[in-house]
Amino acid sequence: MSTRKPIKLGLSMRYLGYHAAAWRHPEADPGAASKLGHFLRIARTAEAAKLDMLFLADGIGLRTRDEPPGALCRSHQTAELEPLTLLSALAGLTSRIGLVATASTTYNEPFHIARKWASLDHLSGGRAGWNIVTSWSEAEAWNFNRDQHMEYDLRYERAAEFVEVVKGLWDSWEGDALVHDKASGIFFDQSKLHVLDHKGKHFKVRGPLTVARTPQGRPILVQAGASEQGLEIAARSADVVYSASHTLEAARDYYAKLKGRLAKYGRGWDDLKVMPGITYFIGRTQAEAQAKLDQLNELVAPELGLSYLYGQMGDLSGYDLDGPVPEPQDPRIRSMARMALDLARRENLTIRQLYSRIAAGFGGRVVVGTPESIVDDMEEWVAAGAADGFNICPPVLPVGLDDFVELVLPELRRRGMFRTEYEGTTLRENLGVPMPANRYAAARG
Amino acid sequence: MSTRKPIKLGLSMRYLGYHAAAWRHPEADPGAASKLGHFLRIARTAEAAKLDMLFLADGIGLRTRDEPPGALCRSHQTAELEPLTLLSALAGLTSRIGLVATASTTYNEPFHIARKWASLDHLSGGRAGWNIVTSWSEAEAWNFNRDQHMEYDLRYERAAEFVEVVKGLWDSWEGDALVHDKASGIFFDQSKLHVLDHKGKHFKVRGPLTVARTPQGRPILVQAGASEQGLEIAARSADVVYSASHTLEAARDYYAKLKGRLAKYGRGWDDLKVMPGITYFIGRTQAEAQAKLDQLNELVAPELGLSYLYGQMGDLSGYDLDGPVPEPQDPRIRSMARMALDLARRENLTIRQLYSRIAAGFGGRVVVGTPESIVDDMEEWVAAGAADGFNICPPVLPVGLDDFVELVLPELRRRGMFRTEYEGTTLRENLGVPMPANRYAAARG
Repeated sequence: MSTRKPIKLGLSMRYLGYHAAAWRHPEADPGAASKLGHFLRIARTAEAAKLDMLFLADGIGLRTRDEPPGALCRSHQTAELEPLTLLSALAGLTSRIGLVATASTTYNEPFHIARKWASLDHLSGGRAGWNIVTSWSEAEAWNFNRDQHMEYDLRYERAAEFVEVVKGLWDSWEGDALVHDKASGIFFDQSKLHVLDHKGKHFKVRGPLTVARTPQGRPILVQAGASEQGLEIAARSADVVYSASHTLEAARDYYAKLKGRLAKYGRGWDDLKVMPGITYFIGRTQAEAQAKLDQLNELVAPELGLSYLYGQMGDLSGYDLDGPVPEPQDPRIRSMARMALDLARRENLTIRQLYSRIAAGFGGRVVVGTPESIVDDMEEWVAAGAADGFNICPPVLPVGLDDFVELVLPELRRRGMFRTEYEGTTLRENLGVPMPANRYAAARG
Repeated sequence: MSTRKPIKLGLSMRYLGYHAAAWRHPEADPGAASKLGHFLRIARTAEAAKLDMLFLADGIGLRTRDEPPGALCRSHQTAELEPLTLLSALAGLTSRIGLVATASTTYNEPFHIARKWASLDHLSGGRAGWNIVTSWSEAEAWNFNRDQHMEYDLRYERAAEFVEVVKGLWDSWEGDALVHDKASGIFFDQSKLHVLDHKGKHFKVRGPLTVARTPQGRPILVQAGASEQGLEIAARSADVVYSASHTLEAARDYYAKLKGRLAKYGRGWDDLKVMPGITYFIGRTQAEAQAKLDQLNELVAPELGLSYLYGQMGDLSGYDLDGPVPEPQDPRIRSMARMALDLARRENLTIRQLYSRIAAGFGGRVVVGTPESIVDDMEEWVAAGAADGFNICPPVLPVGLDDFVELVLPELRRRGMFRTEYEGTTLRENLGVPMPANRYAAARG
C-alpha cells in the first residue's frame, strides 16, 4: 500500500516525561532527571528499538514566579541535566541512535555552537543534531545580561545569520584536508583549510573552526519555527522540522507550506523530514489507556494545574475546579484566553479538565488509544501529507517509552511502517537526508 | 621521611601529545585527536594508574598566519575535539578519574558555564573541574565579534566577577532542596531554592541555575594565573593551580606567594594544590631517555621549528640552523627575544637546538631522565615547597603516558609518594580539598 511508507521516529526525553505529574507516578524515580543512568536506560531501549534519534528540548532559565502560590514547588520541570553534556555522555555509551540537543541562537555564539556540535558529531561517529531555537522567555533574558527578551523579528534575523555562520564554519576543513603524511611531515593540505571571515549585522566571525570536517559533513539541523522567518530558516537549512500542530488539518497545511519552499533552495521534497511532537497514552484496550491518563491526572495538584492556565486566564483558584471555566473579568486577559476558552466551551470542560489537557503532554498533542488506533492515527497523518514521522514525548520515562516499544512498535512493523534494522551508521543515513557538499570543494568542481 | 608526602597527579592530554612532532612518532595515529577511542584508551590507562585527573587545555581560535611559510600545515595543533563534549563522553566510560576542561571567561557567559559544569559533575558522579582562563590571542577575539583581544586588566576584572557569578549560581539549590515527596506532591522545598540576582559591572545574571546542587558541592576550580589579578582569583576560589614555572626557585617563590594569600580568604594551606605542568622523556637509562627526545626532535621540520621562534625573534630561515642564534637586527624585536637569547647564550645553543627546546613540551618545563632521576626531581620540588603534585604532559600520546605509568609510577610508589587506590569517589575527595558550604545553608547556621 503506497501510503504505508516507512516513518521516522524521534524520542523526546526531557525531565521525567511530559506529564506534569510524571514524577509522582508509582514507577518514577523523582531524582532521575539528574542521573545519567536514567537517560542511559532510555537511550538503550530506544536504540534497541531502532528509533532515529534522542531529542532534548531546552530552556535556559527557570520562571520562579509562583502563580498561583504553591505551583512552582510542585513542578518537576525545574532541575535537570544540560542537554549537550548529557548527549555527549550518551555518545560513548550508544552506537547508532541520533543525538539531538537544543541550543538558542539568542544566547550563544556561533563559534561555540559550531565547535561543540562538530565535536559531538565526531565523538558519536556521525549522530549529532542541533535543534535551533531563538528562546522567548524573560527568565532566559535575565540570565544573560538583558532586562527583557529580544524582540521577535530581531531574534529571527539573528538566528538566520547565526545558522549561516555555523554552516560556514563547518566547511572550514574540506573532507580530505588532513593528509597526515608522516614521511613528508605535512599534516594537512593548506589549500583545503578555509577562513570564513564572516562580517554581518549580528556577528563578526573569522574562523577557521578548530574541528575537522565531521562524519555527517555537518550535524543534522532541526528546527521548529512556524512563523514566516522560521519557515525560511527551515526551508533553507533544516533536515528535520519538529512541528507542533494539534490537528490534522493544521499539520497538513503546515507540511505543504514548508515543503513547498524547498525547491526555492534547490532542495528535494524528501530532503527535509517533518516530525510532529506527540504524547501517547497506550493501553491494550481504550479503557486501559484512559486509565493511565486518569491515574496521572489525579496526581496533578490543583496549584500546579492552575498554573498552566495562569498565563492566559489569570488566577482561577477561587473557582470550583469541577465547575465551568469562567469568562475572565479582565478584558486584557480575555483575548489571550480565547483558545483555551474555545476548547473549554466546545468540549464542555471543567477547570480541572481544561488544565489536565495541558498538563498531560507539556501543551503538545495528546492521543489516548490502543496500538491499533494509535498506528491508524499515524498512518492517517502520513497518508494525508501531514508528517514524515513523529517525535514521541512519553508522559512518564522510562515506562511510557516501554509502552511504546512493547505495544505500538510491533503494530507499526506489522504494517511495514518502521525499520527492523538501522539503514546506516549515521543519523543522516537513517533519516535519509542528503550529505551536504563542502562549499569550497563544490566550487572547485 | 616527612618530605615524602603523597603527591597529586594530573594528565594533560591535548592533541597527540605535547611534542611538536608527536604525530610523526612511529606509534602515533595522526588522526587520533578527533577520535573518542584515542582519549578513551588514555583515560582508562590513567584511571587504572589512579591518576587524579584528566586535564584539557583549550584555545578557541587557530592562528592561521603561516610564519615562516610552510609552518602551519606541519602542525598537529590545529584540529581537535572540543574539551567539554570530550570529557562528557568520557564521563560515562570512566568511574573515578577527575575530568577538568578549560573554558574562557572572556568569550563565555557565566550561566552557560555554571550549568554545563554542574551537569558534568552530576554525569560523572562528582568528578568535574573547570580550568578558568581569560584567553589572550587575537585569533580568539576574531571568532567572537571583536577586532582585538580585550585588554589584560579588563579581562581579569571580568574573570573575577565571572567566577563569583558562577559560584553564586552553583549555590542556587541547597543540597537537601529536592524533597521529592510523592505523597504530598511537593517536589522541592521552595525555601531552599535561591535567586542570585547578580548585578555587576560585567554581568547581570538573575538565576536560579536549573541544575541541582552537585555531588562535589561545586566542580573543582583550576586556575593558572601568575599575575597579581590571577593570584587573587586563585587564592580566593581555586582548588588547584596549574603552574608553569621552569625552575625550582621560581616555582618555590610562586608557591609561597600563592599559599601565603589563602589565609586572607579563610582558607588553609592545603586547601589549594599547586601542580606544575611538566613533560617527561623517560628511559631505563639516561641515554634511552635522551634518544626518545632526539628521535622526536629530528622529526621537527625546520619550517615548524622556526615558527616557535618567529613571534619573539622574527624570521630566522635565512640562517644556518646549526649555527649560533643571531642577535635580532630589529631593535623592537630585541627586547622580546631576550629570554630566548639568554637561554641560547647560556647553553651555547644553535638555532635548531633552541627551537627544539620549545618544541619538546609546548613551551613548558621538560625533564629527560630515568625513573629514579625523575622521581628525585619530583621529590626535590615537593620537599622544597614548590609543588603539591604535577600535571604530566606526555610528549606523545598514548605512548608517553604508558612510559610514565610503567616506569615512573612504580618508583613513586616505592617511595610512598603516590596512592595505590583512590581515596574517594569524587575528584574533591581524591585531591583532598574541602567541600564548599552552600552560602544560604551556612547563613542559616
